[in-house]
Amino acid sequence: MSKAGHGEDEIIDRIQRRVPSSPGGALRLGIGDDAAVIRPRPGTEWALTSDQFLEGVHFLADAHPAEAIGYKGLARATSDLGAMGAKPRFFLLSLSLPVERTSAWLDRMTSGLARAARRFGLTLAGGDTARSTARHPGISLDFMVMGEIAAGRAVTRGGAKPGDAIFVSGRLGASQLGLELILRGIDRHRQWQPLLVPHFYPKLAIELGRWLAQRRLASAMMDISDGLSTDLHRLCRASHVGSRVHQHQLPGVTVPEGLRKLGLDAQSLALHGGEDYGLLFTVSKPNVASIPRAFGGLRLTRIGEIVPGSGVTLLADGVAAPLAPQGWDHFRPSR
Amino acid sequence: MSKAGHGEDEIIDRIQRRVPSSPGGALRLGIGDDAAVIRPRPGTEWALTSDQFLEGVHFLADAHPAEAIGYKGLARATSDLGAMGAKPRFFLLSLSLPVERTSAWLDRMTSGLARAARRFGLTLAGGDTARSTARHPGISLDFMVMGEIAAGRAVTRGGAKPGDAIFVSGRLGASQLGLELILRGIDRHRQWQPLLVPHFYPKLAIELGRWLAQRRLASAMMDISDGLSTDLHRLCRASHVGSRVHQHQLPGVTVPEGLRKLGLDAQSLALHGGEDYGLLFTVSKPNVASIPRAFGGLRLTRIGEIVPGSGVTLLADGVAAPLAPQGWDHFRPSR
Repeated sequence: MSKAGHGEDEIIDRIQRRVPSSPGGALRLGIGDDAAVIRPRPGTEWALTSDQFLEGVHFLADAHPAEAIGYKGLARATSDLGAMGAKPRFFLLSLSLPVERTSAWLDRMTSGLARAARRFGLTLAGGDTARSTARHPGISLDFMVMGEIAAGRAVTRGGAKPGDAIFVSGRLGASQLGLELILRGIDRHRQWQPLLVPHFYPKLAIELGRWLAQRRLASAMMDISDGLSTDLHRLCRASHVGSRVHQHQLPGVTVPEGLRKLGLDAQSLALHGGEDYGLLFTVSKPNVASIPRAFGGLRLTRIGEIVPGSGVTLLADGVAAPLAPQGWDHFRPSR
Repeated sequence: MSKAGHGEDEIIDRIQRRVPSSPGGALRLGIGDDAAVIRPRPGTEWALTSDQFLEGVHFLADAHPAEAIGYKGLARATSDLGAMGAKPRFFLLSLSLPVERTSAWLDRMTSGLARAARRFGLTLAGGDTARSTARHPGISLDFMVMGEIAAGRAVTRGGAKPGDAIFVSGRLGASQLGLELILRGIDRHRQWQPLLVPHFYPKLAIELGRWLAQRRLASAMMDISDGLSTDLHRLCRASHVGSRVHQHQLPGVTVPEGLRKLGLDAQSLALHGGEDYGLLFTVSKPNVASIPRAFGGLRLTRIGEIVPGSGVTLLADGVAAPLAPQGWDHFRPSR
């Protein structure tokens, strides 16, 4: 066993020591066998999804602290469960690491991962490890997460109807603002440090999603991962409807004066900034009165309405114009 | 949209067109929303596991046909379900591809994937795509598979008892023999082509695993993925027992004369060769008579017995010697 690198079993041990992974309850068999075994509760369904978190694609190993990589990787995947209204329960982690990341870095990454797992109520049920090579020199994390939901209560993207009101939770653009600081190389300035937190440690709207699903208050729901302009297009396409958004109603992040001078604009961040992981949901007219102004500290803002047709129209200063999706697509050739 | 590369949505479309992915039955909601939703059948549990298949780690893009990469990637993961006795049901695929692999190569890979999905009874329920970058220039596939099993019937690695007989299914070393041809650069010789098939398109013992689990005939079970010497050590450690293996009873692959001359040895391949994906299982004395000599065309061979203590002893020509694990560990420093 070399000092720099550790065997597969030891890597798994290091993760297990920190991250909740004990079998019990629904988890009949956890890490260490060919597969994990989970027992469903009667009357429930499982929501499941996977999400990759790759160095050089989704994060920069130099700019992102190891703790944030573990935390955010799991948060991104879990956000998709919240967007169905499910209660997060289990996750699998497939990990590919350069040997020099298998000691101190791994421990710090795992601490962030453990923090996210505890916060979201997730137990690590299994996974896979591999060593990076010339074709994959970077860090790669792939999360598969499972959540539980009462049978028939999952909220899809496809249920929005003309006349429904459109809501978002939280502030839009806060994560992108932090990313812009990194991309501009000013993320080490002490005065901007607090602005990085939403990018590194996004808050999820899990409880809000569960509440909306349990009470059947949302007709359609998804999380905002690739930016409002992109994700609202997706919701409209899935529901076969169009939408109108009122720009002055958008709950945009506050951009400090010193950053506005650098061209960072709250409206643009709110419309196109990704990775906020708030919820985007629609509510039929009779249910609008049941939506509070805030839920568990998260502001809930009505930003527009569903209309017949397709696409997204932005209303700004009395002018209506089509809003093109300008968020994130990994394979879009030009960006 | 460039000719060489395709957007994320089109990549997903290309996969969906070929691979079984329609919702129905237990799959309430499939690809296209934030998460898939599955409904368990009463009295069942889910087995779940994930497995990475990485260029340069687990396969070579030049030596392995695209069809084989899709087929084998899914087979490797599914083998772990068979080893619990579960019936494969759903899978998620996280895919990271260089842009030049998003057209013809993707279609061929997906054809192999579809063949495996149909053979194993799997429906694609979701996943994630990303574009390769400088830190991940290679092809990366990560499979999460789920299987269904009657509550309480999953067979772990931990149930072997002294006195139990040890069985393996199929032939040992056939996949490694194919890999050795590739590593020696003689895999293009027409005479050796048939020897590559077990390496590219491994057969799984899914039905055997289910039969053993349903009848409670196996006290412990796992698949042989990293070689008998490594995997039997794992089974013994999980069961807190030792084992004795009779070398002359091993159902080794037949090595043609021309390859024996190159130093390829059937005994060594049988003991340490990985990726055969046969089952290794133990059977208590009263149940041994219920184990047939073959099951669905797969030979079942008794190779030894469980003893008190720990580790693996190899009996060859009347001499007993400890058998060290010499299979695959990605993070083992020297190999």
